[in-house]
Amino acid sequence: MKEFFETAVRVRYAETDQLGIVYHANFFIWFEVGRVEAIRQMGVAYKHMELEDDCHIVVAEAQCRYLYPARYDDTLQIRTRIASVRSRTIHFLYEVLHQESGKLLATGETRHVVCGRNGRPKSLPEKYRRALGATPQETPAHSPS
Amino acid sequence: MKEFFETAVRVRYAETDQLGIVYHANFFIWFEVGRVEAIRQMGVAYKHMELEDDCHIVVAEAQCRYLYPARYDDTLQIRTRIASVRSRTIHFLYEVLHQESGKLLATGETRHVVCGRNGRPKSLPEKYRRALGATPQETPAHSPS
Amino acid sequence: MKEFFETAVRVRYAETDQLGIVYHANFFIWFEVGRVEAIRQMGVAYKHMELEDDCHIVVAEAQCRYLYPARYDDTLQIRTRIASVRSRTIHFLYEVLHQESGKLLATGETRHVVCGRNGRPKSLPEKYRRALGATPQETPAHSPS
Amino acid sequence: MKEFFETAVRVRYAETDQLGIVYHANFFIWFEVGRVEAIRQMGVAYKHMELEDDCHIVVAEAQCRYLYPARYDDTLQIRTRIASVRSRTIHFLYEVLHQESGKLLATGETRHVVCGRNGRPKSLPEKYRRALGATPQETPAHSPS
Repeated sequence: MKEFFETAVRVRYAETDQLGIVYHANFFIWFEVGRVEAIRQMGVAYKHMELEDDCHIVVAEAQCRYLYPARYDDTLQIRTRIASVRSRTIHFLYEVLHQESGKLLATGETRHVVCGRNGRPKSLPEKYRRALGATPQETPAHSPS
Repeated sequence: MKEFFETAVRVRYAETDQLGIVYHANFFIWFEVGRVEAIRQMGVAYKHMELEDDCHIVVAEAQCRYLYPARYDDTLQIRTRIASVRSRTIHFLYEVLHQESGKLLATGETRHVVCGRNGRPKSLPEKYRRALGATPQETPAHSPS
Repeated sequence: MKEFFETAVRVRYAETDQLGIVYHANFFIWFEVGRVEAIRQMGVAYKHMELEDDCHIVVAEAQCRYLYPARYDDTLQIRTRIASVRSRTIHFLYEVLHQESGKLLATGETRHVVCGRNGRPKSLPEKYRRALGATPQETPAHSPS
Repeated sequence: MKEFFETAVRVRYAETDQLGIVYHANFFIWFEVGRVEAIRQMGVAYKHMELEDDCHIVVAEAQCRYLYPARYDDTLQIRTRIASVRSRTIHFLYEVLHQESGKLLATGETRHVVCGRNGRPKSLPEKYRRALGATPQETPAHSPS
């Protein structure tokens, strides 16, 4: 099993709904946060993928299973794994945990197609494939020397 | 195939992102609009389910497949079907079409558990099961044998 | 006093918060809806202003006063007036009313600067100044008699 | 000049719009983040104000002036000051700065009325008045002459 990359978000009042819990669609925004921070930890700034290489990882499919509600002001841990990186597609897996208790609140996944700004699929440049294919242990930040 | 219920939304500027298309999480909000209008067309005001009967149809799973992007100011048709209504769960299916061209932009589904405000699962009152199952066609639960 | 242009929105579950009312920032999104529909009623599709004339009416200031809360599933009337249209700025006024009761829920205003996609201010083309400067009574410019 | 309390947010893709900048209504959500973190730094968890003392600081007025756009992945500094705390009202001031450059992107303010969950105004308990007024410096209301 691939290692996960971790980031944290704190639930905003804006993200709650009148049932007193987080409105479900917000989990997909947190998945975005998790995925951007995951690839940043792997050495890739998504902003640069877009600006410098016209590579947009467009969402082709998104799914979330909700186990327990997230609540206002909770600190949540977003754990992101890359399930696969192919020439034109990337597949991410997510877990959202309540940080204090460690309780698993939701799991999800997103599948992406690499596209240019024109919306046409294109190949992910080799430098990104290499960076995203590396497991966290192999990222430069962790290398001993 | 079950009949669908239809409603329309117009894409707001707030719903676009810097790629010039609708941010993907907004489709889940449109699914909410589609499902609320579908059950309204079946004679049920979701507001009353919550206020009068303490029945909240909490999202347990949500999924969307994105085929083509939606764009600013597009009028979209949201087609909602009820796949199944059981004692404690409801399963909805969705299609999002570009109204002018009829192009299918996305498909999705959501699974819900009926809960009280306390978050505990409960049975959907018979009047709602009948309303949601009875139209536009019978649900399997009502089949004779 | 200038006449107002009217449009309606229905409150989405996603727009509520855990206090059981609409989260305040959503009123600014409704102002956007009100303003886009207002200028559409005056014969201008904002989409075309952006696409065909590279005119973006960027928000320079936004303000809202909240008198009474809006609630889930309420139908709201958004009344939009143009307070002024100058060479490079437009000033809109808004009222949000509860449609059924006619109760005034909020008032607001936004000031905009006309900019190109590059973010630089520019003059609003004469055709738009003319269209937006006309009062509603004068817009049925197309009516025959 | 009163001291400010500081917190940081990173711009999410979801917060951008098709002009390639942050959609303006999101600044009001960041003001919420700023205000909640400010009062946390003053020793008050807003969550507890709601849960334990039925004190909700409902937004009565919100305003923002936009000087420069915020962009995707920018880290922003939210600076929050309390302008005044009275028996039933609180007034906050905000500045949003681009963290790296220090450029001021927006200023704003929100006025709040303290209400119970029933929506009726009520007095802010003394413990909160003291906490919010006492630090980092005295509010004018407490000045001797």
